[in-house]
Amino acid sequence: MNKIFDNITTIAFDADDTLWENENFFRDAEKEFYVLMQEYATKENLEKELYKREIAHLPLYGYGIKSFILSMIETALVESKNTIKPDIISEIINIGKKMLAHPVLLLDDVEPFLTYLKSKNYRLILATKGDLVDQERKLEQSGLKHYFHHIEIMTDKQSSNYTALLQKLDIEPSEFLMIGNSIKSDIIPVINIGGKAIYIPFHTTWVHEEADAKSLQKINYLELSRLGELIE
Amino acid sequence: MNKIFDNITTIAFDADDTLWENENFFRDAEKEFYVLMQEYATKENLEKELYKREIAHLPLYGYGIKSFILSMIETALVESKNTIKPDIISEIINIGKKMLAHPVLLLDDVEPFLTYLKSKNYRLILATKGDLVDQERKLEQSGLKHYFHHIEIMTDKQSSNYTALLQKLDIEPSEFLMIGNSIKSDIIPVINIGGKAIYIPFHTTWVHEEADAKSLQKINYLELSRLGELIE
Repeated sequence: MNKIFDNITTIAFDADDTLWENENFFRDAEKEFYVLMQEYATKENLEKELYKREIAHLPLYGYGIKSFILSMIETALVESKNTIKPDIISEIINIGKKMLAHPVLLLDDVEPFLTYLKSKNYRLILATKGDLVDQERKLEQSGLKHYFHHIEIMTDKQSSNYTALLQKLDIEPSEFLMIGNSIKSDIIPVINIGGKAIYIPFHTTWVHEEADAKSLQKINYLELSRLGELIE
Repeated sequence: MNKIFDNITTIAFDADDTLWENENFFRDAEKEFYVLMQEYATKENLEKELYKREIAHLPLYGYGIKSFILSMIETALVESKNTIKPDIISEIINIGKKMLAHPVLLLDDVEPFLTYLKSKNYRLILATKGDLVDQERKLEQSGLKHYFHHIEIMTDKQSSNYTALLQKLDIEPSEFLMIGNSIKSDIIPVINIGGKAIYIPFHTTWVHEEADAKSLQKINYLELSRLGELIE
């Protein structure tokens, strides 16, 4: 295996868009929302206003689909100047319920890679941001739960959150490798505390998760297009 | 101390209505909701329909204030037959935001009791149900975080959830004592797996959490009116 695995005992995986598809369901939901709202505002305006509200609501609502539904409803109310037809609000709630009931679609190579790591006796951790009940549902449905020694659903993924996780599990940063699709949440904060990271971009990234990978020195950090590259 | 503490090494606390006030904020919010909706439906009908939706939404939305806001909005839409004025939806969202920003009010005796237990070297755990970001906010604001060795925010509190928690923390049921205000979530499931429990009722209980304490034999289980009784 790649030398980034030297001295590593514990490998943590992000979940959404690293193990299974996620962000594209948000993009599809937004498209439905723009169509529903077309008599009240342009797509460009709705896109800007919805994103603004999602970010403003993060401290109060956190990440996840329920927060997203509430931000869509509020955007609909404000952009229609409180003239929205109530059935459109019902439709927005239905978009959210559909997202929450969506089957879990695993990404390529995930299961063979987890099996391989397990056979090599790495301690595997799931470290994900988001809504508790929705992440637990996806983990149950994914059939991947048995691979993981510990599951951590985090309110945020700053360096301080990773430090707390490592302390709790009694892991040194130098033994810790994080694998994920967000430079901002999975890579930078882990490298900053002395861990290692593998970045595997997903084709769709939420604007809020974008960060400039070029600014990072390629030390303790590897970029791949697919998980499978590691065992080929 | 009471003999229920014999052999106990780990004491877990429920949070809402055991350490701090919670349920009364829901009751207050419901009253505001009934007033907002009075031209569309009676209080009795709204109460019944809102509760029905909250329970129906539990598997999809989980516990917590965001789920409660979404259930209020859906009840408003259905009970008005989609004729609700949009500003009422805005008002419902504001009721929820006010709940999410409410200061944390600790219950009597909580801090001295935690200090006392800590001085006796018990391992203290917080085991709460609910929304991740909201529970973490309350814990931060409460100033109680430093008392706890481990914090578990659970999607549900069935016996199987407690078994998983005890396995994860490597605790035998016979060393485990749970303290909480819900017979259904904090007492029965813990006794069923061989742990001990102390029930301290709060003046307000959500109907969904009600259970008949009389059916329980008073074995491994104690009822108190206040935490402070244990150290007096």
